[in-house]
Amino acid sequence: MAKLYGIGTGPGDSSLLTLKAVKILESIDVIFTPEAKKGGDSLALSIVKDYINPKAEIIQKHFPMNFNEEEKNEAWDEIAEDIEAQVKGGKNVAFITLGDSMTYSTYIYLLIRLQGKIDIETVPGITSFANIAASHNMPLVFDKDSLVVVPCTTDHEKIDFALANFNSIVLMKVYKNFQDIIDKIKEHKLEKHAILVSNSSLEEEKVYRNLENVDKGQISYFSTIVINKNITA
Amino acid sequence: MAKLYGIGTGPGDSSLLTLKAVKILESIDVIFTPEAKKGGDSLALSIVKDYINPKAEIIQKHFPMNFNEEEKNEAWDEIAEDIEAQVKGGKNVAFITLGDSMTYSTYIYLLIRLQGKIDIETVPGITSFANIAASHNMPLVFDKDSLVVVPCTTDHEKIDFALANFNSIVLMKVYKNFQDIIDKIKEHKLEKHAILVSNSSLEEEKVYRNLENVDKGQISYFSTIVINKNITA
Repeated sequence: MAKLYGIGTGPGDSSLLTLKAVKILESIDVIFTPEAKKGGDSLALSIVKDYINPKAEIIQKHFPMNFNEEEKNEAWDEIAEDIEAQVKGGKNVAFITLGDSMTYSTYIYLLIRLQGKIDIETVPGITSFANIAASHNMPLVFDKDSLVVVPCTTDHEKIDFALANFNSIVLMKVYKNFQDIIDKIKEHKLEKHAILVSNSSLEEEKVYRNLENVDKGQISYFSTIVINKNITA
Repeated sequence: MAKLYGIGTGPGDSSLLTLKAVKILESIDVIFTPEAKKGGDSLALSIVKDYINPKAEIIQKHFPMNFNEEEKNEAWDEIAEDIEAQVKGGKNVAFITLGDSMTYSTYIYLLIRLQGKIDIETVPGITSFANIAASHNMPLVFDKDSLVVVPCTTDHEKIDFALANFNSIVLMKVYKNFQDIIDKIKEHKLEKHAILVSNSSLEEEKVYRNLENVDKGQISYFSTIVINKNITA
């Protein structure tokens, strides 16, 4: 029976794909991949390109990243219908998504629309923050500490609360309000325990330990800050 | 130059190993693995066994899991010294650890002791909670929500705070105070949004949606509860 596979590709380095993801991609019929900007390259596709069944059809779809909810919903409804039709027509379809498939992924919007209509198998992936912690030998969380992961698109009070009350903090999507976030971390005197990574595991990766000399021109939408108050970064 | 590799094996299913982990294991000289009980099997070792360099030496070490800090510190000091000697003797050494290498792993205690003394490369792995979310098509966290991961060995007020204030909550190490945790989730009326998984991705896996009819005799130390208030489990 044909299925939709939702596959987390990890943060950027192909060697962080799981064996399970590779095995599925090697025999897939159709791959759907997000194309962030019209005409732009898909990072998720570049991660998996050496592992895809050479006969697979690759369908790049544009997903609006703006805040027009109606436009976004229409785009998701349309791609969900396309995928449903492909799977019901007997094709095994993969939707690839950066990082982990269930952690702030675009795939979740598809899953919510398609659950119960077709058979779906989701494959987890390495998150950007797990990779940043590993690459820089910086423990993310241990012992009795909790870990909090906060998207910086949320209310600023929630960011302040996390910085004040947790020892292990991940700040995702650090971009739009970049300078505010850096200022907040400095107010909480946490810069010595922080590492900022833009484009984790890619060639263009930029790393700032202690948040020193961060140049906004050099960092991308895929920027993440990992803080551990028990560790000097 | 010889190195210590700290490798996250994922939660149990070998297909969740990364390509990077497999490549390192295929050419490693020595593997250190925790043996939870004296004489017991190492789950981490069983995950990687088909991928290890057949000439590699496998060293199983007993790590006390009790609360005698002195005994634990001595055990960690001793294994750190063993690994340091092996790497300085020119051997590439892997230390394998369940789940992700930087998320509540025993490897962190070694890393802290060995950083600066030998060359160390850490490889991330799939966490139990990422795998539970994926396996059960249950989104972990999306949009502007934060994710909080709480070890149930912490103070109960912190567990209550997480249940009251976050939409996406992972409770790890649900075992000792098992009934209290279940009761708390029910007090917060969250059982419809919760999934409890014991031995995620292993043959002995047990899954309880909505926390119904949970049998403590059937669940292990490796039990995790994933809650998402936006989702009906």
